Amino acid sequence: MLTSLRQTIAELLVNKVAPPKHELFRSRHDISDPRIGDYLFSYEQVKETQINTVAVLLSVPQDLGVSRNGGRAGAAAAPYAILQSLYKLTPFNGEDSLFDTIHLIDAGTLLLNNLTLEEGQALQENVVFTLLEHGFIPIIVGGGHEIAYPNGAAIGLHAMSFGILNFDAHTDVRPLLDERLGHSGSPFRQIAEREDIAFNGNSFVEFGIQPCASSRSHCDYIHRLGGTIMTYTSIRQTGFHTSLQEALRIAENDNDALYVSFDIDAIASAYAPGVSAPAAIGFTADEFIETAYMAGRNPKTRLVDFVEMNPLYDIDNRTAKLVALGIASFCFGLAARHT
Amino acid sequence: MLTSLRQTIAELLVNKVAPPKHELFRSRHDISDPRIGDYLFSYEQVKETQINTVAVLLSVPQDLGVSRNGGRAGAAAAPYAILQSLYKLTPFNGEDSLFDTIHLIDAGTLLLNNLTLEEGQALQENVVFTLLEHGFIPIIVGGGHEIAYPNGAAIGLHAMSFGILNFDAHTDVRPLLDERLGHSGSPFRQIAEREDIAFNGNSFVEFGIQPCASSRSHCDYIHRLGGTIMTYTSIRQTGFHTSLQEALRIAENDNDALYVSFDIDAIASAYAPGVSAPAAIGFTADEFIETAYMAGRNPKTRLVDFVEMNPLYDIDNRTAKLVALGIASFCFGLAARHT
Amino acid sequence: MLTSLRQTIAELLVNKVAPPKHELFRSRHDISDPRIGDYLFSYEQVKETQINTVAVLLSVPQDLGVSRNGGRAGAAAAPYAILQSLYKLTPFNGEDSLFDTIHLIDAGTLLLNNLTLEEGQALQENVVFTLLEHGFIPIIVGGGHEIAYPNGAAIGLHAMSFGILNFDAHTDVRPLLDERLGHSGSPFRQIAEREDIAFNGNSFVEFGIQPCASSRSHCDYIHRLGGTIMTYTSIRQTGFHTSLQEALRIAENDNDALYVSFDIDAIASAYAPGVSAPAAIGFTADEFIETAYMAGRNPKTRLVDFVEMNPLYDIDNRTAKLVALGIASFCFGLAARHT
Repeated sequence: MLTSLRQTIAELLVNKVAPPKHELFRSRHDISDPRIGDYLFSYEQVKETQINTVAVLLSVPQDLGVSRNGGRAGAAAAPYAILQSLYKLTPFNGEDSLFDTIHLIDAGTLLLNNLTLEEGQALQENVVFTLLEHGFIPIIVGGGHEIAYPNGAAIGLHAMSFGILNFDAHTDVRPLLDERLGHSGSPFRQIAEREDIAFNGNSFVEFGIQPCASSRSHCDYIHRLGGTIMTYTSIRQTGFHTSLQEALRIAENDNDALYVSFDIDAIASAYAPGVSAPAAIGFTADEFIETAYMAGRNPKTRLVDFVEMNPLYDIDNRTAKLVALGIASFCFGLAARHT
Repeated sequence: MLTSLRQTIAELLVNKVAPPKHELFRSRHDISDPRIGDYLFSYEQVKETQINTVAVLLSVPQDLGVSRNGGRAGAAAAPYAILQSLYKLTPFNGEDSLFDTIHLIDAGTLLLNNLTLEEGQALQENVVFTLLEHGFIPIIVGGGHEIAYPNGAAIGLHAMSFGILNFDAHTDVRPLLDERLGHSGSPFRQIAEREDIAFNGNSFVEFGIQPCASSRSHCDYIHRLGGTIMTYTSIRQTGFHTSLQEALRIAENDNDALYVSFDIDAIASAYAPGVSAPAAIGFTADEFIETAYMAGRNPKTRLVDFVEMNPLYDIDNRTAKLVALGIASFCFGLAARHT
Repeated sequence: MLTSLRQTIAELLVNKVAPPKHELFRSRHDISDPRIGDYLFSYEQVKETQINTVAVLLSVPQDLGVSRNGGRAGAAAAPYAILQSLYKLTPFNGEDSLFDTIHLIDAGTLLLNNLTLEEGQALQENVVFTLLEHGFIPIIVGGGHEIAYPNGAAIGLHAMSFGILNFDAHTDVRPLLDERLGHSGSPFRQIAEREDIAFNGNSFVEFGIQPCASSRSHCDYIHRLGGTIMTYTSIRQTGFHTSLQEALRIAENDNDALYVSFDIDAIASAYAPGVSAPAAIGFTADEFIETAYMAGRNPKTRLVDFVEMNPLYDIDNRTAKLVALGIASFCFGLAARHT
């Protein structure tokens, strides 16, 4: 079954992705301690009859938009670092085994070589749309936040209606450069203004926006769209758990689908030093892991991405490991939908 | 108005400070996203009629007292690193714009070249006293904790009565070396024993003193003064918010004025690695930001400093950014006094 | 009295340990600010009549088991780094002086040169057993987690019954390599299967086991022993303090003795970067300090170790300082037994 799923996805994405690198997977060759990598590259996963959910990892090594926004390049190397950490994890959380309930496939790496940012975004939109249309849950591993624009476009083309939960220190609704060039600071403006999709501003939630990290003008823009800004300060006052539930409620609302975007710079740099734009304050590692789990468990969630991790500034793989655990936690959330 | 304020301060401090370096300010040149630096170096700030508060940044690149105390030099470079981060921040916290309510002026850098520690402290005392006497709220950016002695002396000469809240892992009431040489570990003893000011021990609060980081003898000294020691351990037991309110209540009491000193080493080194003497435990970044805001909002607060940040040990500007956000938060507190 | 205690211990361990290095101790030569090092190497400690507790530090620079487990070597250098930080601390927590109530002796460093892992473990077992039999409370400063096996064996030989609280991200019950070679991942399996001691699985508590960091097979093994796994996730849900009390209750139960093992990798790498296997999530520095104190205060605790700190990956001694403070906190807990 796994082989057949892999084959199906490979055929769907032929010439658009490079297959996953087997060097990513270093097995302990210990039957008493299998790792996620063992299941992705060698082992059978769940029994055929139980398959409800197939999550598909897609690496998008894109950071042209970070550079265009004046940021520090390096996020293009994040998918490799993150998956390397992910594949060493055990698929067991102390109570449940991940592969009792869901399938997880590594679809490989988007072929961005020699493509402009706009060409790469078009390719990504096409691939993510294809995965959504076939019923898979794409887990997009970025890359800069510019990869959110094609993700938003793809879910907009796929779903009748959708909400967005952006877990982020920044609003990322900057105007385009020269009114035409998108970048890592503009994805949600590009999604909102895309004409062939039904963006619903009332289901757009900015979660974690930090003080002194966004302009009044950008916040006004979000409010004009009908969007909700839950600032970091207000989340600390209300409490994290309550705020998160409220954010999910607003973003899912009556929509068919929910897209959750995790900008790793929403996490305090103590826990996540390896990002393009580190912040002195921010969410804890635990809060990120809880959010990833809740996003996975929410039955509306159809698409997720993890962006802005930057291995060039990481410390002993701390951030790569955290994002890997976030992905695993999202998958445990997916698995819990069926319980 | 801004130009006139700048001019007034420059004239008051002529030959005592070097003007702020314009290289500190790197504008995005984006009218939809102005930064604090834009307002300090180019933009008009609040309308003239609304001015209630003028806060004045003064850089004090002093660390002779750290070296004299056997500590690691480097804090002299902190003002530059901190202001560089501060000027990139937006003056917007998600709800309010800083410059709707207050003025913030960069008075420049105290001219300490070739001065001994004692000469530098005398110059600083003179400058801070001048700023206080003219009704400004000085924000002193250090430098080692030896800059607290002239700050305390200046507020003592200015106010009829004053309290001190020292946010710190250490008590900093060490005896002077050879009974005459002050240093970064002795400022509060020097203030307490200064004869021409009315130091009131009952309004002296040591907030955050860590276990195994102070001696019984130093704590006994504080108790003999009538001061209050709120240990880190007791703050964790009582709760941070409640403890902070109690600390402010004791320090402001019936005094005219309150002086708040932030030693950045009170913050856990996970959040603030770039300090002279890092601590394994300590306050979170959020708690520091909350304290800075509460200090600014308290109508008694007339003087604040941020000390012991050390760029030589910082990681990717984490600590500089945190102190910058603390200064911004203090200013938002000032702005909130009028609401 | 101190001299006599030192002499007694030195004679007990002759040819098995090297005496403590005096270079570890750098006094301020300040009678108003004595440090733990002053008391260990020069000062008289408690008055003879008051002595209830004598804690004995033993350095075990062992990491052969970490390498054998495929981990990163370096933990052998941890005792030196940790004690260097410990001896600079003041023996005062803001309220009490450590040496009013207990004695603390540095017994020196286990002589592991040229010994195999198994030979070193046998020597350690002998030394720890000797210390236990003479009524001392050994504080073993590792070293990889392979040093827990001889510790468990020694307490098993000494006590009629004992419990184990393992503060750890990992279960460390891996099978032996080739069914005979222990390592840093196997100590608790080796203790459980040791035939000449009365291991009681019902008093074995794994505290802090992280998601995706242990296999189902290893957890099943613990459950078959009758042991309790308190996962990190469940501790976060229940609350730290309540969970810790429950863990101590289960581990001490009706036993004569309690052995507490602190694997520093249970702490988030933000707070403890210098470990063999860092984790992106984990306990805070405060939680570790609280646990060390509670372990010391528990009258059943007869033996403690601190393992897996690795100076090669530390940042500005952050982790060494944290472990040092943990040891001091354990000692303050010991002191509080008598109040």
